[in-house]
Amino acid sequence: MSEAVEYDVVVLGAGPAGENVVDRTRAAGLTTALVEAELVGGECSYWACVPSKALLRPALARADARRVPGLAGSVGGSLDASAVFAHRDYWTGSWKDDGQVDWVDSIGAHLYRGHGRLYGVRKVAVTSPEGEHHVLAARHAVVVATGTRAMVPDVPGLAGARPWTSREATSARQVPGRLLIVGGSVVAAEMATAWQALGSQVTLLVRGSGLLPRMEPFAGELVAEALREAGAVVRTDVSVEAVVRDGSTGPVQVVLEGGEILEGDELLMATGRSPHTEDIGLETVGLTPGGWIPVDESCRVEGHGWLYAVGDVNHRALLTHQGKYQGRIAGAAIAARAAGAELDTGRWGAHAATADTHALPQAVFTDPEAAAVGLTLAEAERAGHRVRAVDYDLGKVSGAGLYADGYRGRARMVVDLDREVLLGVTFVGPGAAELVHAATVAVAGEVPIDRLWHAVPSFPTISEIWLRLLETYRG
Amino acid sequence: MSEAVEYDVVVLGAGPAGENVVDRTRAAGLTTALVEAELVGGECSYWACVPSKALLRPALARADARRVPGLAGSVGGSLDASAVFAHRDYWTGSWKDDGQVDWVDSIGAHLYRGHGRLYGVRKVAVTSPEGEHHVLAARHAVVVATGTRAMVPDVPGLAGARPWTSREATSARQVPGRLLIVGGSVVAAEMATAWQALGSQVTLLVRGSGLLPRMEPFAGELVAEALREAGAVVRTDVSVEAVVRDGSTGPVQVVLEGGEILEGDELLMATGRSPHTEDIGLETVGLTPGGWIPVDESCRVEGHGWLYAVGDVNHRALLTHQGKYQGRIAGAAIAARAAGAELDTGRWGAHAATADTHALPQAVFTDPEAAAVGLTLAEAERAGHRVRAVDYDLGKVSGAGLYADGYRGRARMVVDLDREVLLGVTFVGPGAAELVHAATVAVAGEVPIDRLWHAVPSFPTISEIWLRLLETYRG
Repeated sequence: MSEAVEYDVVVLGAGPAGENVVDRTRAAGLTTALVEAELVGGECSYWACVPSKALLRPALARADARRVPGLAGSVGGSLDASAVFAHRDYWTGSWKDDGQVDWVDSIGAHLYRGHGRLYGVRKVAVTSPEGEHHVLAARHAVVVATGTRAMVPDVPGLAGARPWTSREATSARQVPGRLLIVGGSVVAAEMATAWQALGSQVTLLVRGSGLLPRMEPFAGELVAEALREAGAVVRTDVSVEAVVRDGSTGPVQVVLEGGEILEGDELLMATGRSPHTEDIGLETVGLTPGGWIPVDESCRVEGHGWLYAVGDVNHRALLTHQGKYQGRIAGAAIAARAAGAELDTGRWGAHAATADTHALPQAVFTDPEAAAVGLTLAEAERAGHRVRAVDYDLGKVSGAGLYADGYRGRARMVVDLDREVLLGVTFVGPGAAELVHAATVAVAGEVPIDRLWHAVPSFPTISEIWLRLLETYRG
Repeated sequence: MSEAVEYDVVVLGAGPAGENVVDRTRAAGLTTALVEAELVGGECSYWACVPSKALLRPALARADARRVPGLAGSVGGSLDASAVFAHRDYWTGSWKDDGQVDWVDSIGAHLYRGHGRLYGVRKVAVTSPEGEHHVLAARHAVVVATGTRAMVPDVPGLAGARPWTSREATSARQVPGRLLIVGGSVVAAEMATAWQALGSQVTLLVRGSGLLPRMEPFAGELVAEALREAGAVVRTDVSVEAVVRDGSTGPVQVVLEGGEILEGDELLMATGRSPHTEDIGLETVGLTPGGWIPVDESCRVEGHGWLYAVGDVNHRALLTHQGKYQGRIAGAAIAARAAGAELDTGRWGAHAATADTHALPQAVFTDPEAAAVGLTLAEAERAGHRVRAVDYDLGKVSGAGLYADGYRGRARMVVDLDREVLLGVTFVGPGAAELVHAATVAVAGEVPIDRLWHAVPSFPTISEIWLRLLETYRG
């Protein structure tokens, strides 16, 4: 092994979270190395948000167009799957990372391709694909940003059945005739929406009682209803006992608890994520391989002043935008500590990832879209807040009805009755993904209800839901 | 004339602004009369926002669908105009106001149909269509909410040429082959968009140097560019000298300064609005008929403690949503004064229409949409603020590119450098109308830039423009 190369900061993992750490530490003048075993840009750019949105947008735009009198009649029946795939391939750079590598070079960071492992305190060992070894020494910080991978449960027969995970579901080049999807959260709901629209007969097998379990219950209900109307089968409270697949290209069979057997052409397991931490040397610094890495508000690992974890791997919020946010916060904290400056780690401070717990936004690109920020009613009550939930039928807003004939949707805001601010807001309906940022500003900005009355929504936009929610709250 | 009937509050004009006064004063337990000479619901419901959005939405949805690979090829060439008109008719209630009258009844207000005129202090005389006369006496307040009408300029030949105004443009049942539009502001730009998409060959004749003169200059530039690409002719810096039309259904000719003659099948004059105040008895209380009615922050007329003006007629902001806002503010102020309570007319107070001057939002449903809130750069500079404009190409936001292939748009935020808050934000691009409310919350909420960093936009939404604007500002 060669002599250690010194950097101020070494970042393990070049997904969006790691890239933001690099960006911020480089901007502060620190020397920074970035280690990546796969593609620079990470899961999001190649096998998650980006390709999934490219697959979903045609489905959603078609659904929107079909709800507009005067246009609906001229919208054809089926999507051109090959054009959709070609567009998806464009957005993933055909799974090449040249553009992102150029960006790393442009800001003067040093990219190491290969598998990186912690190698004791402040040290990282990298093994390149060609078998070269490097040791990197970090003067100020090592940042773990290795993300997650799809978690495939231990079901008899599954391992040999070549199941799709989110990777295959976002990169496939053929439309399976029958697609079985196991799971009920975002990946399951989005991929059911996309593939049903692309021509598959989708069957969604949900272990729990509904879809999108982390959102307000009506989100999953509206999405399930729409999936059924689009022709998908949605089954809840089902459990997969075994999977059978013979040969290399044949159909796959899923055995449910109770003995029922379902057959599909492909099987997507969308059953959660596990941290990418098994083989990154956590044991060399006294941490547990394979586990999530808990961090403080600045994304630093307790008891290890030099070690940070950002993005999925710290388990604060498994969302690209939030990983980027953590990357900015951690990068700023590392730079401040390196400079001996005072940190601002108080609530909403420059070095505190407060939004992770108080204003976490998420947009789900199903039809209808579902988007939320902050706490659900149940979460707010569990946290001990004195709250009131204010609900409104989005379809009764003029701007929504004019946007789509027969618009169906729902909104809820959760009001903290003691402070008269919003703790959380949920929108479900066509176009909801772009509605939620107003709520994010209101929640993160802690804008009082009294002041929200002066934030007038334009007529006739869907955003006039804000006026209706305020009027309903006023009673 | 009969004896006066007493009410706490008499409202002249049952458009959205007047309706909101009625709603708020009734909620406070005041007896309230509402006088309307035309349809309850006002210009917005029958000849402006609502029918125009119904005409525009198919055009915008088609444009959106055509920008989505995999869907674009299956979107037909022409809109079904008769289906569009039928949907527009549905939304205007076929120009019947039964639903709105039901609402007035349901809250216990008294509707007088007929022409209302001030009749000295605290008195209103109403002449019904049947020739009956009523005198209404107001214990606490008379509110003028008579709105505006299209202003048709004094051009030779125009009066006899049966020009369209916004009323005919939003209620027409035939698609003119060639539509000439004179004007460059919202009505002109929106109707050009709608009618060009419905099949007219539109020629837009703009006196000024560009469209949408009240917005940031790039808004009008992008809308003009798109109109031209859609096949419309957009001519700026032209002046109409005369109009010629013979017979009752023949073509109409417009003579430009310099002598050029243009011919169309219809001519829309979209040349501004004038207040509906000529014949409402203003002279009986010492005010000038035909003029705008200036008011204070609570929408009360200076020197007339009992007289209010809300909506277009006070010339603070000629927008439906802002008239409604003023109606709520004035209604609350009237109720508070009637109860002898203290008013909160300070900045952003419950009885001050502060948003009219500090956070006025507007959405224009052209393709691309243009939406803005607060001050433009030029307005902020004129007002003496120390500001910086931060611009960003919306098409470079991943969420925008995934929403529409070849997305074109632009965003600007105007930052108050002394207070580090936003004074104004403008978005132009597909979907911009729903982006602006986040800016409205930020501007009205005076959310500091430092806090906006914690308002994380979801990836991959168009709203991620917020992150790009903040990054650009940080530099």
